[in-house]
Amino acid sequence: MKRFYNLADLTAPEVEQLLDDAARIKKDPLTDDLRGRQVGLLFLAPSLRTRTSFEVGVRELGGGVSTLEGAMFYALETRSGARMDGDAAEHVREAVPVLSRYFSAVGLRVMAGGRTREEDLEDHRFLSFAEHATVPIFNMESALYHPCQALADMLTVREILGSHRNRRITLTWAPHPKPLPTAVPNSLLLAAAQMGMDVTVAHPEGYDLPGTVMARAEALASMAGGSVRRTSDRAAAAAGAEIVYAKSWGALSRYDAPDAEQASRERHRDWTIDEAFMARTDDARFMHCLPVRRNVVVSDAVIDGPRSVVVDQAENRLHAQKAMLRWLLG
Amino acid sequence: MKRFYNLADLTAPEVEQLLDDAARIKKDPLTDDLRGRQVGLLFLAPSLRTRTSFEVGVRELGGGVSTLEGAMFYALETRSGARMDGDAAEHVREAVPVLSRYFSAVGLRVMAGGRTREEDLEDHRFLSFAEHATVPIFNMESALYHPCQALADMLTVREILGSHRNRRITLTWAPHPKPLPTAVPNSLLLAAAQMGMDVTVAHPEGYDLPGTVMARAEALASMAGGSVRRTSDRAAAAAGAEIVYAKSWGALSRYDAPDAEQASRERHRDWTIDEAFMARTDDARFMHCLPVRRNVVVSDAVIDGPRSVVVDQAENRLHAQKAMLRWLLG
Amino acid sequence: MKRFYNLADLTAPEVEQLLDDAARIKKDPLTDDLRGRQVGLLFLAPSLRTRTSFEVGVRELGGGVSTLEGAMFYALETRSGARMDGDAAEHVREAVPVLSRYFSAVGLRVMAGGRTREEDLEDHRFLSFAEHATVPIFNMESALYHPCQALADMLTVREILGSHRNRRITLTWAPHPKPLPTAVPNSLLLAAAQMGMDVTVAHPEGYDLPGTVMARAEALASMAGGSVRRTSDRAAAAAGAEIVYAKSWGALSRYDAPDAEQASRERHRDWTIDEAFMARTDDARFMHCLPVRRNVVVSDAVIDGPRSVVVDQAENRLHAQKAMLRWLLG
Repeated sequence: MKRFYNLADLTAPEVEQLLDDAARIKKDPLTDDLRGRQVGLLFLAPSLRTRTSFEVGVRELGGGVSTLEGAMFYALETRSGARMDGDAAEHVREAVPVLSRYFSAVGLRVMAGGRTREEDLEDHRFLSFAEHATVPIFNMESALYHPCQALADMLTVREILGSHRNRRITLTWAPHPKPLPTAVPNSLLLAAAQMGMDVTVAHPEGYDLPGTVMARAEALASMAGGSVRRTSDRAAAAAGAEIVYAKSWGALSRYDAPDAEQASRERHRDWTIDEAFMARTDDARFMHCLPVRRNVVVSDAVIDGPRSVVVDQAENRLHAQKAMLRWLLG
Repeated sequence: MKRFYNLADLTAPEVEQLLDDAARIKKDPLTDDLRGRQVGLLFLAPSLRTRTSFEVGVRELGGGVSTLEGAMFYALETRSGARMDGDAAEHVREAVPVLSRYFSAVGLRVMAGGRTREEDLEDHRFLSFAEHATVPIFNMESALYHPCQALADMLTVREILGSHRNRRITLTWAPHPKPLPTAVPNSLLLAAAQMGMDVTVAHPEGYDLPGTVMARAEALASMAGGSVRRTSDRAAAAAGAEIVYAKSWGALSRYDAPDAEQASRERHRDWTIDEAFMARTDDARFMHCLPVRRNVVVSDAVIDGPRSVVVDQAENRLHAQKAMLRWLLG
Repeated sequence: MKRFYNLADLTAPEVEQLLDDAARIKKDPLTDDLRGRQVGLLFLAPSLRTRTSFEVGVRELGGGVSTLEGAMFYALETRSGARMDGDAAEHVREAVPVLSRYFSAVGLRVMAGGRTREEDLEDHRFLSFAEHATVPIFNMESALYHPCQALADMLTVREILGSHRNRRITLTWAPHPKPLPTAVPNSLLLAAAQMGMDVTVAHPEGYDLPGTVMARAEALASMAGGSVRRTSDRAAAAAGAEIVYAKSWGALSRYDAPDAEQASRERHRDWTIDEAFMARTDDARFMHCLPVRRNVVVSDAVIDGPRSVVVDQAENRLHAQKAMLRWLLG
């Protein structure tokens, strides 16, 4: 049984095929691949793009779709052996197998639990849901990965640059009022590396992405003829970039010290992407997964300017996800 | 690109055509006008009728529909140039263009922001969403207008009276525990005037509808051979009416003084529509857009009586909106 | 006009036909019985299984479906003659007739109001909604009945045992942190009695099911050649059982004394279904309607063991409900 958890679980040729299929679907959006199939979407965190693009995508593939959000049911227990006399009314050991009886595939948005760094670095919460599925599941964002976003991003890069190999992308940290999870930067980094791009990861000291993700990205880049380098020098981050991909995330090293983390984050307010930063690049396009905090992550001038492709990226979510669903259920 | 914002933006013949089409659809509800099209509904305020009638209507036209409600995502920023380090996680400048990529049309319920009277009288909040759409948008109720309701109401009037021109409708203010917006009375007044009805607007002193709306209604009535008059005399309001349309709204003159507004509203509790009031009309039918506060806006005897057509009105929402969608996307 | 409120309102042959139809649909799930029909689902309480299984089921029958939840609209008044100047913005006297204009059938989950025992024992709240419907309504769980669950349960029993008549089922009370309603045990008891099963109802002293339900179950059992007996002896409850159906409920006798009810409930913590209990049965299968509190209602060992059929039961909701909708709208 297939599942779509981390894009890097697929081979590079499989990812290329998904991108080719997404490009075809973008031109010819209506199919009947999912005729008579029902897809369930389970959100334990808010969503605008993911929810609507999946709902539209499933219907354009001829299927039916139901969306479930946390507020519509009740708290779900994930711990094995729990004596359930607290808030949680149902265990994922029942909830997920039951949904598997109703749906041909189930999408899950189950993000960081915030209990411990170790649990989140193992994607404990998402995987504790996924392991009980008896139909294909797909990841609509977990603590560690956002593979649908990365697939859409790789499609967008290919549309802009015509190719991936040795094209220069800078994934840069940005300020934000909250300590966000690393799912988007992790998946972007892995996907860009797997496609053979030359990736610069730029962030202030202390904001390293998870070591296992960096190591895997380096291995993937090496296989694909690309490269991964890390810097905390913003001038070096900008130089030569054909794509600037901005994203904020919280410091994993201060996971259990939110006040210190916040203080450190606020010391790097000058990491906002502005026209001065963009001017130092190789006429780069600006990418961001959205939602984005204007004039915190990126200045109005950059996101409203002609080099911004954030809405195209978001549109590509739809096409990429339809290709993924065809792969998953085909 | 068409949009459906204020029914009075259409010409009278266009409105008549919509009513004709709605009457046809009412008899023959299933079409494939929206085959392969997806419609998004965005609600920033609660809804029972609007949501269900649009969901049913889009599917009966062969399309797909997704509903988004505020609680499902996060606060949206509307101000230009805002530094977004507060609650709002996304700006309408991204959210609305992105939805425009997924959907063939987007409906918006974005009501009064309540910041200032001036902003609401300009429909600032709705228009700050709508201006960023790149597909046709339609108004599911803004601070100023509720054109879907008005279109359904004009269909209902035509069913009851057989015609509009010089038929006598009284739009009367009614008590309510809350200071409601003027969208429904504004749109009813404009539509009735545009259809050439003789409209009496009755309300206590201080509860004038917006001056721009009254002026536009008078101009429309004059073009259509109808009339608009205003009164605060309840006996005059009832006399001769063939339709009594009740609706509460708050005093625009006390927008920034809610306590004074409430006190003034409570002084007019006797404006409830009851059998005594109806007895002074020309055997009028009773209309209301719903939801309605029983025994506050209208007595049980009137709304449960044989002259009440409130459920027919609500049914006509479905048919009128389907006609509107065919016009918008045809 | 048909309605589906209490499974016992149908004759035993009608229920058998529904079960036959559900078994057929389980093998051949896609039909066009509801082509061009729209079904509304109104939930005033949370739901996972009911909502998703109905959404999937309606679409698999070729129809369209809309789900409404309390948080999406506003409080609804149910009392006749109320002066509505409080929280409730709309009366069921308008809301339900309006929904009847949009939908071919409306499902309602309207559970106990909690105002008084008498109201809940008369299913006042559900019936105050249902009486205003002008299209067929179906019960997705009321204060008194959960007929969709009972129908799915009878299908599951038939799949396991091959027949119902004089097969031995024990419906046993179980501990729980909250005083749950009796809808599920009431409907299970009535359905098992109507199918001619030999039913043992086991609960601690003071946890009697409603007297009218017990009396009706006895009458049904007598007609069908089965039996109903009551015990508070757990050894007697287990002995000979081919099915153990566990469910918690609150003490009706202490409806207005929640602290005393809770204290009494906690005295019976040893009613958890565990392997020792199951070992005293006739190799019984374990059933529960879900959601279930693990290690409170039932031990992990039992629910994870080979005799547990709780997920099959939940799957059968889908098939049983589709049969019910065909019956209701056929």
